[in-house]
Amino acid sequence: MRTDADYARELDRQDELARFRDEFVIDDPSLIYLDGNSLGRLPKRTIVRMREVVEREWGGRLVRGWNDGWFTLAQRVGGKIATLIGAEADEVIVADSTSVNLFKLTLAALGARPGRRKVVTDYLNFPSDLYVLDGALELAGPSYDHDSVLSRDGQTVSPDDLAAVIDDDTALVSLTHTAFRSGFVHDMAAITELAHRAGSLMLWDLCHSVGAMPIELNRVAVDLAVGCTYKYLNGGPGAPAFLFVRRELQEQLVSPIWGWFGQQSQFDFDPTYQPAAGVSRFQAGTPPILSLAAVEPGVDLVLEAGIERIRAKSIRQTEYLIALWQEFLEPLGVTLHSPREPACRGSHVSFGHPAGLRIARSLIDEMGVIPDFRSPDNLRLGVSPLSTSFAEVHEGVMRLRRVIQERSYERQTVERPAVT
Amino acid sequence: MRTDADYARELDRQDELARFRDEFVIDDPSLIYLDGNSLGRLPKRTIVRMREVVEREWGGRLVRGWNDGWFTLAQRVGGKIATLIGAEADEVIVADSTSVNLFKLTLAALGARPGRRKVVTDYLNFPSDLYVLDGALELAGPSYDHDSVLSRDGQTVSPDDLAAVIDDDTALVSLTHTAFRSGFVHDMAAITELAHRAGSLMLWDLCHSVGAMPIELNRVAVDLAVGCTYKYLNGGPGAPAFLFVRRELQEQLVSPIWGWFGQQSQFDFDPTYQPAAGVSRFQAGTPPILSLAAVEPGVDLVLEAGIERIRAKSIRQTEYLIALWQEFLEPLGVTLHSPREPACRGSHVSFGHPAGLRIARSLIDEMGVIPDFRSPDNLRLGVSPLSTSFAEVHEGVMRLRRVIQERSYERQTVERPAVT
Repeated sequence: MRTDADYARELDRQDELARFRDEFVIDDPSLIYLDGNSLGRLPKRTIVRMREVVEREWGGRLVRGWNDGWFTLAQRVGGKIATLIGAEADEVIVADSTSVNLFKLTLAALGARPGRRKVVTDYLNFPSDLYVLDGALELAGPSYDHDSVLSRDGQTVSPDDLAAVIDDDTALVSLTHTAFRSGFVHDMAAITELAHRAGSLMLWDLCHSVGAMPIELNRVAVDLAVGCTYKYLNGGPGAPAFLFVRRELQEQLVSPIWGWFGQQSQFDFDPTYQPAAGVSRFQAGTPPILSLAAVEPGVDLVLEAGIERIRAKSIRQTEYLIALWQEFLEPLGVTLHSPREPACRGSHVSFGHPAGLRIARSLIDEMGVIPDFRSPDNLRLGVSPLSTSFAEVHEGVMRLRRVIQERSYERQTVERPAVT
Repeated sequence: MRTDADYARELDRQDELARFRDEFVIDDPSLIYLDGNSLGRLPKRTIVRMREVVEREWGGRLVRGWNDGWFTLAQRVGGKIATLIGAEADEVIVADSTSVNLFKLTLAALGARPGRRKVVTDYLNFPSDLYVLDGALELAGPSYDHDSVLSRDGQTVSPDDLAAVIDDDTALVSLTHTAFRSGFVHDMAAITELAHRAGSLMLWDLCHSVGAMPIELNRVAVDLAVGCTYKYLNGGPGAPAFLFVRRELQEQLVSPIWGWFGQQSQFDFDPTYQPAAGVSRFQAGTPPILSLAAVEPGVDLVLEAGIERIRAKSIRQTEYLIALWQEFLEPLGVTLHSPREPACRGSHVSFGHPAGLRIARSLIDEMGVIPDFRSPDNLRLGVSPLSTSFAEVHEGVMRLRRVIQERSYERQTVERPAVT
């Protein structure tokens, strides 16, 4: 593959999704943004939508906004996300944060598999998913425990690794689909089948997958899923998360948080909790409407572009990024911490270098490149197919090479990672 | 008290807080808005702040926004709310919804009082608070239960009523400070003392109090509190809620939801949960920054006006409203469902009429008045001292009188209440 800047521009000219870059606010074209996997860029339409929901709906309609559409906004946006993850509209709802949704679904799953005391997960999982799981198991009782599979290579876990611990005491298998460090993607179909063969429920955290690749929850009979909307869905900082419950399970599962937005006929103000029908029972309190409204325009952009086309561009871009690494970075001692096989890789690529954290700070502070860093030594570069250009990827790698060649990161004294 | 329109205008001229009405978006001056106790009006400053957080911070700073201030926004806004409720800045944090916060604090409280199996509440409590409580008790185990005091008159519950059921098996007393139907205000000091005398913890839900009256959590040694920000704090639809944990209790209590925003050094990505120091451990997932940013300008307005002055105006306005009721509505068969004594009343007044729901619909659809309705028969009129004028209260009652006199509500066919 050619690695010169002209070729990057040629790839952009050939890109059928190139026009979507204009849908986003890009104030500073010299800034190379390779962290859309942490916080996606702001869609221009979201500016319009936010003015509308704040000024016209809240300011003008006041409390009537609830009956005008806020009341069903979580269902409406959930229904759109459903089409991105191979689910039906009545199986997905936007609510709370990923952590709170994981908590709700984990305890609901344990309740639906009485007598089984084990949850299987792995150490590729996002740490917070492990915390929430441990907290839920603590509440479930002293006989409950998790069985967490270590990764042999620090990047991947195979279905066989998991098969070795999934058994007839397993109530739930809970995994993150695309690993936050390496970008490794689990085999959703194979692992879901393993879980079901053992009589267990299967939960997938889709945070690092949704909006970047097609997901087919119903085709592979997934039971439960959660995910965030602020990465490849461009929903805004801390945007509300979503959850999926397979239709046939909805009436069997009960959320541990008996909030009034999950109550049947909530405005009857009956003092006794009666879960609402369907997936709405997994709502808890009043949803944060301003943040929720901001989610919709980004989801609409993904739907317009088409998730298959997005995945195709994502693969082209990560392949291109790896080719640039091989040419320019590997000779400088940078290692690849992501799978080489595109089918096993999400939309970000992680690189290893002993000075990774200081290199990240140098890129941000001095070089106008925004990657992120995940301890112990992962410099993550993410591509967001709708807003990232090939030229941006090329220039980002060139600047990264310069930081390493010129050892300018040695001026950095940062000792702990923050968000960026 | 005089009940003519001229007198209402005179009261507005004498009102030292009158200028604050200009701080809010009031597009349609003919609309009488008496539902700020459900959703407060939009502060003009919030429009500016929302454009800034969306366009400049998210759009321009991208993920760097986290290090620029989003990361500590929940603490910063919490610290401002603390000054309104008689707490220290490090005792309050904005997080999640009221329901989720109640859930967290209820289970944390049960964990801190091992061996005690009972939670005391009453049926003046918001139904959702009862649901969350029942759900938490279900998780705690089969030996746990609640003891819920009925109101003798449908409007009030006395400290003596509660004293009769608080005993040495009581882990927690959990009450709503201002009752959502009647506006009755519990004696916080007396009941907190009752709880403590029995060795129990005390939790107050401040949703219908905060921003409308001074609250002195630390002076009366309250242990735990929650509240919402979308009523008298004008934080926007479904704005994130807050929670308070008394400083000395913070290290003893553990949230049941072990989310990564409650983790010590969350960006170390340690796989084992270690609760953060202080009240921050009660955060769960990533906070919805856009909705959270919208909370601050409304809180600032309350701080500028002064909570004592707000309470004084609130009392003047509810007294005035009750005087108008006595003159114009009582003769038409409207009953008063709120306490007469101002010290026992919040900032809304409830009226009873057998056709209450249809009257509410008629006011909204035909008369340009927005009250709300709470089943079975409460027509609620709320005053928001910063944005409600005396003239608005007067005109609202005049229009309400007309609907009843002309029986125009008989054209309404609504059978179930919605939000408004």
